[in-house]
Amino acid sequence: MGRVHSFIGTGDSYDWANISEQVYESAKVRGVSVRWLIGAAEGAPHFAVRYFEIEPGGRTSLDRHEHDHGVVVLRGHGEVLLGEEVAEISFGDAVYVSPEEVHQFRCLGDEPLGFLCVIPAHRSASE
Amino acid sequence: MGRVHSFIGTGDSYDWANISEQVYESAKVRGVSVRWLIGAAEGAPHFAVRYFEIEPGGRTSLDRHEHDHGVVVLRGHGEVLLGEEVAEISFGDAVYVSPEEVHQFRCLGDEPLGFLCVIPAHRSASE
Repeated sequence: MGRVHSFIGTGDSYDWANISEQVYESAKVRGVSVRWLIGAAEGAPHFAVRYFEIEPGGRTSLDRHEHDHGVVVLRGHGEVLLGEEVAEISFGDAVYVSPEEVHQFRCLGDEPLGFLCVIPAHRSASE
Repeated sequence: MGRVHSFIGTGDSYDWANISEQVYESAKVRGVSVRWLIGAAEGAPHFAVRYFEIEPGGRTSLDRHEHDHGVVVLRGHGEVLLGEEVAEISFGDAVYVSPEEVHQFRCLGDEPLGFLCVIPAHRSASE
C-alpha cells in the first residue's frame, strides 16, 4: 500500500509526520541528521529517499562507496565536493554522485542545508 | 563522474541548466511536463529522479504498473489518488506509490503542482 508522509515543517524547521530524525554521531560527521521518507518501512524494494539536514558549519563525512546518490537541495546554501571539484549548491540544484566517487556535502551560511538523497535499496555500505 | 544540474528557475517558472522539458502529448494526460534530472544520461544504474510539473487544471494519467514511485512535492497544491484514497499534497509531502497501485496526480489551485518522482532504472513501463 502506498503512503503519504505529510510535511509539517515551517520555514525554520523541516519535519514530517510520523518520521523520526536520526542524528549522526561520529567524529567524521558534524551537525548532520537524516529522516528516511521512503524506504524499507514503506516496503520500497528498489530505492530509498532520505532528507538530510546539515547545521551551519556542519558537513557530512568524506565518503567513497559503491552505491550512487541522487540529491536535490530543498533549503539553504552549501557546497558539494565531487571528486576533485567543488560546486556551490542551493534550492533545486540536482547532484549526481557516481559509484566510488569521493564526495562531501557542507553547509555554508546561517541556515541549515537540507537536501533529498536517493540511494539504491541494495548496497554494501550504510550511508 | 558526478554532475551538478543547476536550478535556474524563478518563483513562477522552474527550470534547470542543460535539462530539456518534455511535454506529454496523450489524451490520457492533461498539462503535464517532465524533466529528467538524474537518469541514464548521468549513467545512473539504479534509479532515476525526474521533476514533473502539472498545470492548473491538469492531471497525470490514471496509471497502474509494476514499478513504484517515490514522490516529494516541491511547489503548488494538488491531490494524489492512491488506490481508492485521495490525499491533498503540497510542499514537502512525501508520497510512496507501491508497485501495481492505481495512482493519479492532479493540480489544484492557480499554481502549477511540481514534484520530484523517483523510479527504479529497470522497469517494464515508461512512466
